[in-house]
Amino acid sequence: MSIAQTPAAPYYAVIFSNLRTEVEEGYAETAQAMVELAEKQPGYLGHESVRNGLGITVSYWESLEAVRNFKGLYDHLQAQRLGREKWYSAYKTRICLVERDYGFEAG
Amino acid sequence: MSIAQTPAAPYYAVIFSNLRTEVEEGYAETAQAMVELAEKQPGYLGHESVRNGLGITVSYWESLEAVRNFKGLYDHLQAQRLGREKWYSAYKTRICLVERDYGFEAG
Repeated sequence: MSIAQTPAAPYYAVIFSNLRTEVEEGYAETAQAMVELAEKQPGYLGHESVRNGLGITVSYWESLEAVRNFKGLYDHLQAQRLGREKWYSAYKTRICLVERDYGFEAG
Repeated sequence: MSIAQTPAAPYYAVIFSNLRTEVEEGYAETAQAMVELAEKQPGYLGHESVRNGLGITVSYWESLEAVRNFKGLYDHLQAQRLGREKWYSAYKTRICLVERDYGFEAG
């Protein structure tokens, strides 16, 4: 996993902070399918994902419309429902306007 | 590490996505000192941090002024400089206005 290469701000970030249950059934396949679904959507800019107990996945989008479109897709709604029923003990989703960014890469 | 309990939106998030070098000297102590420094600042709301190769730390703040205040503190500026010189091979910092959030906790 690497740092997402995003265009100049402004753009949107969706921070999905989550804790898993112990249920593994279907989780990895669905998580992968959701990444592939996101990548196909208009306005998708990239994502970053890490888990070590707490999981944080941040996806980046061109606009709020793109965020809403992805949230409302049928397959994604099904995955969200299964997430609440089976895979997550808690989560928080934060929809954010990235106003400014800056970075560093070692020479 | 748990999911940060933040107040109703709007508020600010700072997403710090980073890749480490192999230099350990001083890193853990400084990271801990920066958490303690953040917690003492006006407008600090909480943070979440995970590393598994890629590191993602998200800190939450009441206002852009609180974000800027923390960024400009002398000890934090020193830590940022050491981060570029020693501890990080790359990072990206994104300053975000959290416009909306929602969450879930299993029954």
